[in-house]
Amino acid sequence: MNLSGIFPALTTPFAPDGSVSILGVKENIRRYSTTGLAGYVVLGSTGEAVMLNREEADAVLAAAKEAAHPDKILIAGTGAESTVETIVRTKRAASLGYQVALVKTPYYYKPAYRPDTFIQHYRAVADASPIPVLLYSVPIFTGITLEAPEIITLSAHPNIIGIKDSSASVQRLGEILAGVPSDFQVLTGGAAVVYPALAVGARGAILALANALPEKCVELFHLFQQGKHEEARQLQIQLVEASKRIVSENGIAGVKFVMSQRGYHGGDPRLPLLPLKEEKKQAILSYISQLYPSLAPA
Amino acid sequence: MNLSGIFPALTTPFAPDGSVSILGVKENIRRYSTTGLAGYVVLGSTGEAVMLNREEADAVLAAAKEAAHPDKILIAGTGAESTVETIVRTKRAASLGYQVALVKTPYYYKPAYRPDTFIQHYRAVADASPIPVLLYSVPIFTGITLEAPEIITLSAHPNIIGIKDSSASVQRLGEILAGVPSDFQVLTGGAAVVYPALAVGARGAILALANALPEKCVELFHLFQQGKHEEARQLQIQLVEASKRIVSENGIAGVKFVMSQRGYHGGDPRLPLLPLKEEKKQAILSYISQLYPSLAPA
Amino acid sequence: MNLSGIFPALTTPFAPDGSVSILGVKENIRRYSTTGLAGYVVLGSTGEAVMLNREEADAVLAAAKEAAHPDKILIAGTGAESTVETIVRTKRAASLGYQVALVKTPYYYKPAYRPDTFIQHYRAVADASPIPVLLYSVPIFTGITLEAPEIITLSAHPNIIGIKDSSASVQRLGEILAGVPSDFQVLTGGAAVVYPALAVGARGAILALANALPEKCVELFHLFQQGKHEEARQLQIQLVEASKRIVSENGIAGVKFVMSQRGYHGGDPRLPLLPLKEEKKQAILSYISQLYPSLAPA
Amino acid sequence: MNLSGIFPALTTPFAPDGSVSILGVKENIRRYSTTGLAGYVVLGSTGEAVMLNREEADAVLAAAKEAAHPDKILIAGTGAESTVETIVRTKRAASLGYQVALVKTPYYYKPAYRPDTFIQHYRAVADASPIPVLLYSVPIFTGITLEAPEIITLSAHPNIIGIKDSSASVQRLGEILAGVPSDFQVLTGGAAVVYPALAVGARGAILALANALPEKCVELFHLFQQGKHEEARQLQIQLVEASKRIVSENGIAGVKFVMSQRGYHGGDPRLPLLPLKEEKKQAILSYISQLYPSLAPA
Repeated sequence: MNLSGIFPALTTPFAPDGSVSILGVKENIRRYSTTGLAGYVVLGSTGEAVMLNREEADAVLAAAKEAAHPDKILIAGTGAESTVETIVRTKRAASLGYQVALVKTPYYYKPAYRPDTFIQHYRAVADASPIPVLLYSVPIFTGITLEAPEIITLSAHPNIIGIKDSSASVQRLGEILAGVPSDFQVLTGGAAVVYPALAVGARGAILALANALPEKCVELFHLFQQGKHEEARQLQIQLVEASKRIVSENGIAGVKFVMSQRGYHGGDPRLPLLPLKEEKKQAILSYISQLYPSLAPA
Repeated sequence: MNLSGIFPALTTPFAPDGSVSILGVKENIRRYSTTGLAGYVVLGSTGEAVMLNREEADAVLAAAKEAAHPDKILIAGTGAESTVETIVRTKRAASLGYQVALVKTPYYYKPAYRPDTFIQHYRAVADASPIPVLLYSVPIFTGITLEAPEIITLSAHPNIIGIKDSSASVQRLGEILAGVPSDFQVLTGGAAVVYPALAVGARGAILALANALPEKCVELFHLFQQGKHEEARQLQIQLVEASKRIVSENGIAGVKFVMSQRGYHGGDPRLPLLPLKEEKKQAILSYISQLYPSLAPA
Repeated sequence: MNLSGIFPALTTPFAPDGSVSILGVKENIRRYSTTGLAGYVVLGSTGEAVMLNREEADAVLAAAKEAAHPDKILIAGTGAESTVETIVRTKRAASLGYQVALVKTPYYYKPAYRPDTFIQHYRAVADASPIPVLLYSVPIFTGITLEAPEIITLSAHPNIIGIKDSSASVQRLGEILAGVPSDFQVLTGGAAVVYPALAVGARGAILALANALPEKCVELFHLFQQGKHEEARQLQIQLVEASKRIVSENGIAGVKFVMSQRGYHGGDPRLPLLPLKEEKKQAILSYISQLYPSLAPA
Repeated sequence: MNLSGIFPALTTPFAPDGSVSILGVKENIRRYSTTGLAGYVVLGSTGEAVMLNREEADAVLAAAKEAAHPDKILIAGTGAESTVETIVRTKRAASLGYQVALVKTPYYYKPAYRPDTFIQHYRAVADASPIPVLLYSVPIFTGITLEAPEIITLSAHPNIIGIKDSSASVQRLGEILAGVPSDFQVLTGGAAVVYPALAVGARGAILALANALPEKCVELFHLFQQGKHEEARQLQIQLVEASKRIVSENGIAGVKFVMSQRGYHGGDPRLPLLPLKEEKKQAILSYISQLYPSLAPA
């Protein structure tokens, strides 16, 4: 299982009545099939997985699987707070045809969670999982950071194939890479550090931004692969700005808004995430029309 | 609805096979009925609510309701990440006979959540809820703090009757009390600050420690009510130590261990929360045998 | 040495040319002598000690000593980053007639500072100091918190008589009081928690707010001493608001502005601390004119 | 003034009696002259500037200037808490022949410091300084982070030539580089991210690690300059480990210990920084003997 390349952390589109738009899930994925993306992450943080109930989550997984081209790698977010529920979700994803489980850290009982907690949790999940496990550290949402020592320990497990580190710390990527086997796959979740992450040895990236600007994210990856370092650097600086204006400043609502502008099923996130205010929409529109002149307001 | 007094944030006992012990839920509550506790909080943070699936959560709510004496106030934890799911859970609790809904803040999408997010979320929940809503701010677990300004804004809603603030910040309690109507009920979640919280105007407390040491928590409340300030101070200092050794240092596992020692259904928490190590058990045992000589190791 | 009561952490007035106003130092202290304050802290955080060079600091210490009534306790802030410089400053303060040295934690090399660092530092200072040492933990400025275990360890030193804890954590005060000898004097630095701090066993308070509203701070202390708990509670709630509007929202500039309004030598702080903007001044003025109608704008 | 290359943030050696070793300062610099370092930073964080009094600081500056080869760029750390003292120190450094002033952010009054505070502070310093100013953001010690917007604003000042960002955030470097003029010089302070920092456009690095391992740091820079990306990546991973074991885990004491082993004047840091414990020394020795077999214990 080779995770090289760019994966979008797919958004989940909602219909105007607030229900999940299964049609939207499928149509988005069909359109992405032409962009050079390596596969799809379904039910990640950007997918509002924590906003969906069990039936909704299952429906999204099934729809995405149905729509995805068989050449694309399918990764399901399956992390829950309890070990047992994480295993339940992981098995369900495997039974639906997903190839990799992306398992975020438990995070509610922070004061009680120690490195050993995560080591035991991930080992239990990986032991029980029919599919390979990708660790997932996303401190911006969870308040929990997997640090290099526990990642290195876990990299010895035969069913743990890598990590998505969304901390945007290139230093931590280096610390991980200094200790894991060469086939342990490190992916970054930070669109603003894709190029430096690849430069220090990451395999690829799982990005919210790749919902909105898949072509540019893929282009950056290809420039790096081709050894075009100066062009990669310049595109990275452009994506630093894009990531800030779309993702950092506006979150999922910003990503979905750009998707809508570009013809994808975007829409609003689910409450309590608030829809974008009009002035935010105008600011984004003004910005992305520089990148895609066809999107410029008339 | 008068929330004066001490409420335990009930633990959820698990059977040896890992399933919820419905018998344990009921027997614990029946024993608590003799202790002077004002009521019970079911499915709070200490109740491992985030570890339970929907069916388990419903079963615990039903069992606790069945076992509770009708004079005791029943409060259900019903907060979920999405507004819609929070409303679903709140209505379910109401239909099961719960009198108050304790609604923790949403917390996953921290960078996107602003005061206005919480105000809109709580208003929507309170509008839809058949029972009064108690705000719940528990930054140690969620990384989110409700601050005085948004609490004061929300205190104007007729179906929001108070807040459980688990931050242990007596300063914040003062800031809240300086701005809310006099019938808005402020409860602390910090066993180490019950007396100073009462002194500045809190009505009571919802405590993990009250699972383990209900009599002492209730006694502290009564001393305060009777104006016995010096005795209250001395007991509070004792409970600072108890809270540190049992709750802060050992979490839910520590609370459950002391419960077991005292004849309640304690047991281990659910994974990834790890069971107490033997030396931790010995340290707690050695400590609590000072408080309850009958528990001293032979 | 009994530190019961309220001490202002004195501001340092500057002349229009930016130099220290020695006249202002003296006149402020002379006016405070009528207010019931127990003494004065010179060169604390509110005194902009870190903004003064050696000659300026010496001049302020000398002027304050000269102006202070002999019945008032004189405390000098003498903490520096290095142990040796802290000792130098402490000896200088003692030689100038100060009775207590308030020694803030070192804080620059945070990643290297451990509890043992502070224990060794304070022991060395206390061993060398001709006057008693008061520990000083002020995390809002230093990023360093002295925790109860190291404070309890240090409380055994015969020349360490207490601590000023400015964290506003009443819980920590309880943790300290649970472990120190009964003659170890705990003072709070948080005007918003004076009453609850006294309730759990603090001796007094060292307050920025006491520069601006000394009478009210002293009154709160007296109400507590007289066992007038409900009146103390009400005044405390009033001071929560005062502390927020003057100190928390406006810092030293806010304190100095209120001092100026009340006839003390206030003035602006030293750059890079910026002077108050006009709208902030109006907001404070509008607020404090409720407390002191004579200060209301015409 | 071209700051391309590697600069050590020089340590300050102390004699056994605790005084500054002026001989050590000079001899260290003379030895560094053969290593390919681009120049020297004197009185930075690693130089224990906050531990030195005025006379000691002046003596170190003078000694370093005297010993340095005229081709090397001399940078003096001149930041103080107050704007006026920062200007005094900057002028003194200029008068002693220093070419650039490295000015760390003020940091004590954190709650009062806003982006505008830093903008006004740095403009005042740069206006008054006879030599170019390098901004210095070092949150690990100060708790203050200069963010891209204020850095971009300040980059317009003709006497502010760049920034040393010690946050190790490659993302922030990208955000800075996306907004500053192309001649604004960005240097990283993080030895673990030198290569990715250069890859996104940094000019060079100012490193504590370059005291201990100057040759390796310089080699990394040269590999990057020569477009040898894979070799640079491999050496960077090696330096991630070195930086962790020497600097992150052991601080200035670790850097000085390795210096001593390699024949420089290292010694202990000044108290309250504690000397390395024996087991830490053995761990470092064991590690660096892999890098420099001649240092292996017999």
